[in-house]
Amino acid sequence: MTDRWTPPAALEDFAHLDHDRAARRGYPEAVYCEGKTPDQVRAIAAAVAERAAPTLFTRAAPELARAVLAELPDARHDTDARLLAWPPLPPEPSGGLVVVLAAGTSDLPVAREAQLTALHLGRATELVVDVGVAGLHRVLARLDLLRRARVLVVAAGMDGALPSVVAGLVSAPVVAVPTSVGYGAAFGGVAPLLSMLNACSPGVAVVNIDNGYGAGHLAAQIAAPQA
Amino acid sequence: MTDRWTPPAALEDFAHLDHDRAARRGYPEAVYCEGKTPDQVRAIAAAVAERAAPTLFTRAAPELARAVLAELPDARHDTDARLLAWPPLPPEPSGGLVVVLAAGTSDLPVAREAQLTALHLGRATELVVDVGVAGLHRVLARLDLLRRARVLVVAAGMDGALPSVVAGLVSAPVVAVPTSVGYGAAFGGVAPLLSMLNACSPGVAVVNIDNGYGAGHLAAQIAAPQA
Amino acid sequence: MTDRWTPPAALEDFAHLDHDRAARRGYPEAVYCEGKTPDQVRAIAAAVAERAAPTLFTRAAPELARAVLAELPDARHDTDARLLAWPPLPPEPSGGLVVVLAAGTSDLPVAREAQLTALHLGRATELVVDVGVAGLHRVLARLDLLRRARVLVVAAGMDGALPSVVAGLVSAPVVAVPTSVGYGAAFGGVAPLLSMLNACSPGVAVVNIDNGYGAGHLAAQIAAPQA
Amino acid sequence: MTDRWTPPAALEDFAHLDHDRAARRGYPEAVYCEGKTPDQVRAIAAAVAERAAPTLFTRAAPELARAVLAELPDARHDTDARLLAWPPLPPEPSGGLVVVLAAGTSDLPVAREAQLTALHLGRATELVVDVGVAGLHRVLARLDLLRRARVLVVAAGMDGALPSVVAGLVSAPVVAVPTSVGYGAAFGGVAPLLSMLNACSPGVAVVNIDNGYGAGHLAAQIAAPQA
Amino acid sequence: MTDRWTPPAALEDFAHLDHDRAARRGYPEAVYCEGKTPDQVRAIAAAVAERAAPTLFTRAAPELARAVLAELPDARHDTDARLLAWPPLPPEPSGGLVVVLAAGTSDLPVAREAQLTALHLGRATELVVDVGVAGLHRVLARLDLLRRARVLVVAAGMDGALPSVVAGLVSAPVVAVPTSVGYGAAFGGVAPLLSMLNACSPGVAVVNIDNGYGAGHLAAQIAAPQA
Amino acid sequence: MTDRWTPPAALEDFAHLDHDRAARRGYPEAVYCEGKTPDQVRAIAAAVAERAAPTLFTRAAPELARAVLAELPDARHDTDARLLAWPPLPPEPSGGLVVVLAAGTSDLPVAREAQLTALHLGRATELVVDVGVAGLHRVLARLDLLRRARVLVVAAGMDGALPSVVAGLVSAPVVAVPTSVGYGAAFGGVAPLLSMLNACSPGVAVVNIDNGYGAGHLAAQIAAPQA
Amino acid sequence: MTDRWTPPAALEDFAHLDHDRAARRGYPEAVYCEGKTPDQVRAIAAAVAERAAPTLFTRAAPELARAVLAELPDARHDTDARLLAWPPLPPEPSGGLVVVLAAGTSDLPVAREAQLTALHLGRATELVVDVGVAGLHRVLARLDLLRRARVLVVAAGMDGALPSVVAGLVSAPVVAVPTSVGYGAAFGGVAPLLSMLNACSPGVAVVNIDNGYGAGHLAAQIAAPQA
Amino acid sequence: MTDRWTPPAALEDFAHLDHDRAARRGYPEAVYCEGKTPDQVRAIAAAVAERAAPTLFTRAAPELARAVLAELPDARHDTDARLLAWPPLPPEPSGGLVVVLAAGTSDLPVAREAQLTALHLGRATELVVDVGVAGLHRVLARLDLLRRARVLVVAAGMDGALPSVVAGLVSAPVVAVPTSVGYGAAFGGVAPLLSMLNACSPGVAVVNIDNGYGAGHLAAQIAAPQA
Repeated sequence: MTDRWTPPAALEDFAHLDHDRAARRGYPEAVYCEGKTPDQVRAIAAAVAERAAPTLFTRAAPELARAVLAELPDARHDTDARLLAWPPLPPEPSGGLVVVLAAGTSDLPVAREAQLTALHLGRATELVVDVGVAGLHRVLARLDLLRRARVLVVAAGMDGALPSVVAGLVSAPVVAVPTSVGYGAAFGGVAPLLSMLNACSPGVAVVNIDNGYGAGHLAAQIAAPQA
Repeated sequence: MTDRWTPPAALEDFAHLDHDRAARRGYPEAVYCEGKTPDQVRAIAAAVAERAAPTLFTRAAPELARAVLAELPDARHDTDARLLAWPPLPPEPSGGLVVVLAAGTSDLPVAREAQLTALHLGRATELVVDVGVAGLHRVLARLDLLRRARVLVVAAGMDGALPSVVAGLVSAPVVAVPTSVGYGAAFGGVAPLLSMLNACSPGVAVVNIDNGYGAGHLAAQIAAPQA
Repeated sequence: MTDRWTPPAALEDFAHLDHDRAARRGYPEAVYCEGKTPDQVRAIAAAVAERAAPTLFTRAAPELARAVLAELPDARHDTDARLLAWPPLPPEPSGGLVVVLAAGTSDLPVAREAQLTALHLGRATELVVDVGVAGLHRVLARLDLLRRARVLVVAAGMDGALPSVVAGLVSAPVVAVPTSVGYGAAFGGVAPLLSMLNACSPGVAVVNIDNGYGAGHLAAQIAAPQA
Repeated sequence: MTDRWTPPAALEDFAHLDHDRAARRGYPEAVYCEGKTPDQVRAIAAAVAERAAPTLFTRAAPELARAVLAELPDARHDTDARLLAWPPLPPEPSGGLVVVLAAGTSDLPVAREAQLTALHLGRATELVVDVGVAGLHRVLARLDLLRRARVLVVAAGMDGALPSVVAGLVSAPVVAVPTSVGYGAAFGGVAPLLSMLNACSPGVAVVNIDNGYGAGHLAAQIAAPQA
Repeated sequence: MTDRWTPPAALEDFAHLDHDRAARRGYPEAVYCEGKTPDQVRAIAAAVAERAAPTLFTRAAPELARAVLAELPDARHDTDARLLAWPPLPPEPSGGLVVVLAAGTSDLPVAREAQLTALHLGRATELVVDVGVAGLHRVLARLDLLRRARVLVVAAGMDGALPSVVAGLVSAPVVAVPTSVGYGAAFGGVAPLLSMLNACSPGVAVVNIDNGYGAGHLAAQIAAPQA
Repeated sequence: MTDRWTPPAALEDFAHLDHDRAARRGYPEAVYCEGKTPDQVRAIAAAVAERAAPTLFTRAAPELARAVLAELPDARHDTDARLLAWPPLPPEPSGGLVVVLAAGTSDLPVAREAQLTALHLGRATELVVDVGVAGLHRVLARLDLLRRARVLVVAAGMDGALPSVVAGLVSAPVVAVPTSVGYGAAFGGVAPLLSMLNACSPGVAVVNIDNGYGAGHLAAQIAAPQA
Repeated sequence: MTDRWTPPAALEDFAHLDHDRAARRGYPEAVYCEGKTPDQVRAIAAAVAERAAPTLFTRAAPELARAVLAELPDARHDTDARLLAWPPLPPEPSGGLVVVLAAGTSDLPVAREAQLTALHLGRATELVVDVGVAGLHRVLARLDLLRRARVLVVAAGMDGALPSVVAGLVSAPVVAVPTSVGYGAAFGGVAPLLSMLNACSPGVAVVNIDNGYGAGHLAAQIAAPQA
Repeated sequence: MTDRWTPPAALEDFAHLDHDRAARRGYPEAVYCEGKTPDQVRAIAAAVAERAAPTLFTRAAPELARAVLAELPDARHDTDARLLAWPPLPPEPSGGLVVVLAAGTSDLPVAREAQLTALHLGRATELVVDVGVAGLHRVLARLDLLRRARVLVVAAGMDGALPSVVAGLVSAPVVAVPTSVGYGAAFGGVAPLLSMLNACSPGVAVVNIDNGYGAGHLAAQIAAPQA
């Protein structure tokens, strides 16, 4: 690109798809859609279609999802998780089981994003919903499932107390995802984020607020089959 | 739910109504509507109708309120408090009196949510409005009523000074609800929240910003009849 | 005091003991010692001795405690809670039971300050220690005691998750005291403070960080005998 | 000063006394001592002695106060306010009355710094102590004095509620000084600072936390005699 | 208001107009419109019309302004300042001159709100615009005017540096209003707020972010004629 | 402007174009459009047209851009950067090369604003996109270009790690622009801002979040030809 | 414990050693020493000696370390990591390799605490020091070792950029520990904490600031041998 | 380093001196002393002595300075700046002039650290002290010197207003260093940091709070002679 600047016209002017990294790490590439224009997202989807490379499109608002589907019409689209996966079928599961918990109904979109990500990275997954600490019997009733997991993902907003409780019940690591569920002094997820960073049980791995993709990816790596 | 994930289709996939807790605690169940879809809210309302279990729906924006009323057409709907109560009539009052104060007109929605919650949990209530500390004579004029309360709820934004003043005038505990009323350095309710946590009078119990439901619930527990 | 300013020499120049308030509310007066000089504290203690008025001295560092004991040698002094009570024997208990929980050993000083305050305000109290959520069986083992309480005080630092769990197990109100126990992203008690304000169980009343005195006072008011 | 740098040896290398400003504004110069070395403070005091210019030394810890007194042995030294004034006698008062209130005993050092500053800038002053909002009768008992003031200074920590209450009772402006008195969620004075910025009564002028000097100076300007 | 709660129907259910305070302080009453409904604002305006009491309506978005004008059609309406004044003509000026400065064009709405408030509280005013510190010659060119003021109001966003500079040039007090002008690390006015609280010149009185009304009111009090 | 205030009607009532500064510094004037009305922006553009003075209009939302183009129809308009430049052609480049890097696609608008600013201030520029630290080979592949720069501008959101890495690879200074790209604990650009301020490589100059104009201006000054 | 409160005299009054949890999870118990008195720590150490249960004592300041060694004289004591381990020899390693990186020398204590924890939980470990991103060649030189790890722990302060870079180079998960190394806008570890939560590479698990113990524990769980 | 961990005994176990980077960038290496032990610092100094490589030791508290001087007895030691330079004589100056300003006396240590760093990186420097914006005539009196600079460094605490003012007076770039001078709402340098990031004049490059070394290094790079 020279001094007398011209707007970018080709894909390589605004995005370098990192096929090497995907290949090197053995997982599908991910495209973070928020902040991109529909035209940019569509151009990326077209490149994916051409190369036939497994790809996840995350944080895809409806308009951006349509841009993906215009080029990859058979992609799997989960509207709650705002995620598209191509190819639509996940690989045959390998490695350990990933159990995903949503503390409340409102945490479900983030939990689903985590579950779908782990699924498309090749893990078997289970989802457990509405098991917040206000009713301990609900989580205790699923103890058998929790203890079968190689890794757990726990999505929770508000007081973010569930990961501490779960980590005290199992020996596997817990990936904690704070969600922006709540109001007032929840501060958009800061309250559960701080709770999780200060979990009084060891074995809690924290990711960014609402980062279901990151939680699912991390869980898939932890539960990966051993070489 | 198995590995090959399918979107939830039934109520138990996204919410566990905690009838046990309601029964155990003797209070109506509460459904926090914000962050739920109209379909989810309606499905919950249908389950409530079927079981005929007393329930409060809080933080119900108009679209979500309509979802409730579609299944529970006789529910009481207070639009200012964004609250729906079913059954519409509160139980016969028992226990002590709950007096609710709104420092300013803008604090009224939160104060009403507190009052209605306490009412439907079975307490007698009184509401006093626009008695901020900028005009002390207004609160001093109601001193007799304030001293008859078993517990007081005070909703205030901006400087959040009213709970300190009130707690210095009575011997009953004061539940302080900071509101997001104000601008600039009010920081969405942080200023009154900090004031209330640092109240120079003892006997001030603080709840989350704009949490009228929580304040009313706590007040109802404090004023509960003794076993 | 006139224009040509002279340093205060008499008690009324720096403190107005509020005997009326104490009388009006029916509880001992409290003197917050931090930030006062030993001379100021001793002058106040002398006034207390002269008037024979029940008084609590809170946040008394050793040097300030000695100033109190110089004038009130038979005062009860709890060094962990940094509290002195005069007269040393609490009144005969009345009203409901106050159960105080400390999530961890490090939360004990704050929990003791709460317990002693409630005791000297005339309530029966019980103390339960080291029952954090990392080992749920510890708190579940005390469920009978918890459910006998008219009000509970829960002191917790770090993730501050215990009040949410406890409030889900009982029908009495819970006074939650965040403590400054923890490090890093605990931010001196901010993390448990936010957790408690966002407790997913209703019925949680929050007070300031490390404010054992305030928690005990509030609990004593809630559990007060009915008129 | 040239490239090959040498440590400063003379006063003009580290401080420019701003005699012009003092003259222009008609008030004594102020030297903020914190962060200066004893040698620097003593050199400044020597210059003051030589020029015989009225000067206030603020925030002078004992060691720095001794450095001032070594050169200005007759300076007035108020240890609580950590302030030294030279010449020791204030000017004959002119303009309106400045009334200074301290909400609690612990706010007294800041209140004194404000009072002494206003006094040495030439105003008549009165000091009222321990009139916090937890006992409204205390401040109401001084209403006559408050209403005689041309301007009031209110120093308060914790909930910082006093300026709002006072401003609602008088027609004169109120200078509010938050103090770092308090603990936990007082955050070193942030809580009262926010309260004061959000005072629900108009007419409240806020200065920095613990800035008694600034409050006294501002009050002296407001109460200055009219040209 | 009784237990079986009914929505408020009359003015006294949601607002107490404080005619006493207005009379006591000698200034028009102010109605803060934000957070009120059009119906509430119109009911208040009708009461104002009936009593013929001088009143300012602040922070009136277009819909709320129309509600005022429906009852007080001759009210003065300044759309930039979002302020309505009734009666439309200010009183004859008395007391000292109030000079209002806007650092940049974007600070003008706040500056105008301050100017109009001072004007309707009875002061002579002057407005100076676009005199930020990036071009010092602009403020220095108005030095004569600045020095004629009894009090100055300075509205500034971004670095909030103008009040410090102005206070160093005059002997009158400066009321500093931080504005939410700016982006990124301006944090909605926090950056200029902190600058102003830390002004290195004494004599700076800070009010809340964007609080033009409060600044104008405070300035009017400071410049009030002496009794 | 007199006491009986009238709304401003002419340009000099709300903006002082600082032609002197532009002339003195030798760079085009810049008009920050955000927070101005279309009428104000158009009036400024008309003045620019009349005086034929090189000018940049920054942060121009579509409506404001149209106001500029109405008066300066041949202005260069970059919609991504929300910037308009007049005259449309930049001056002949002088001084050193400015290399601008965008860590990710979403950082491109800010990077373009920086590039265009430097270009219109008279520097040769190069733009490199999508070279985040998650794939180090991408930035290492451009090392030759990076080392030819007299100064580099690096725009990055999220972890803001790229400036540290780049500054460790070159001897020229690096201007770091945090962007508001990211979510959750990115806090609108705070996370990369703090990373950049704490860069472990020396030679990193930080500007405000999303401040592409400021970054480009600073870079142009650093790379200016020597006198 | 009865109403008439007596200070605790026995271990069970202030601490419940959670042997069950240790047994259940298969790892040594950990005792967090900060905030405990030497007497409390010594009583716990005596109980450990009696039961002969593998235990780690973390955050043990010298005085507290001496209390441990008084009862467990053969415990391994690492003064830099402020950690004591008993029995002194770690178990025979099993599971995958844990590689620990310290970005700078000052991060070494935290890194060592992580390494020793993983070692005593039964993993093989390697430590790599001073490989910050300011000199990329240093970390690239160790790529072979990094890629042999089953999990990596990265301790970094200041810009916290190293985990992002490392996670982009390997396919194993990375446990990121922010340290309080740095000054000013590092805010005691907040800057690297935010960087790590916003890492642009997936696969980064964040723990609390300076929480070397938690990082090592989490890493040991991730690298645990498969059932 | 093997699994059975042994404390580091040799330099390469805790620090990699980056001679390559120093050579590559053409500047002396810098050793950040804070957080290192005296033994570590002395070992590094010994390595410097052996290799005879120009080195700056920054943030060296007295005990650490002594460790440096034990191995490099002829090093230049500036106690105010807490900096040691070896060799003691700076190189012959080249490139443009660096002018360093300290707003107040208390900012002098940071300003000196910047000046000495630039000097030892090979630039001519000038230092100007006590020229805060409260007295504009002081900075205006040095305008000739300011305009001769190729780059300016401005150290300021409190309101941090000086860089904005200076940048409006010159055409060279300004490196702004916020200092932790101030109290209360200065928040340890946050207030001036935010002011500087929001400077209303373009051309301001911000570095970390109190980072005199970074400011001096950046200035030296900006003023470097052209290839």
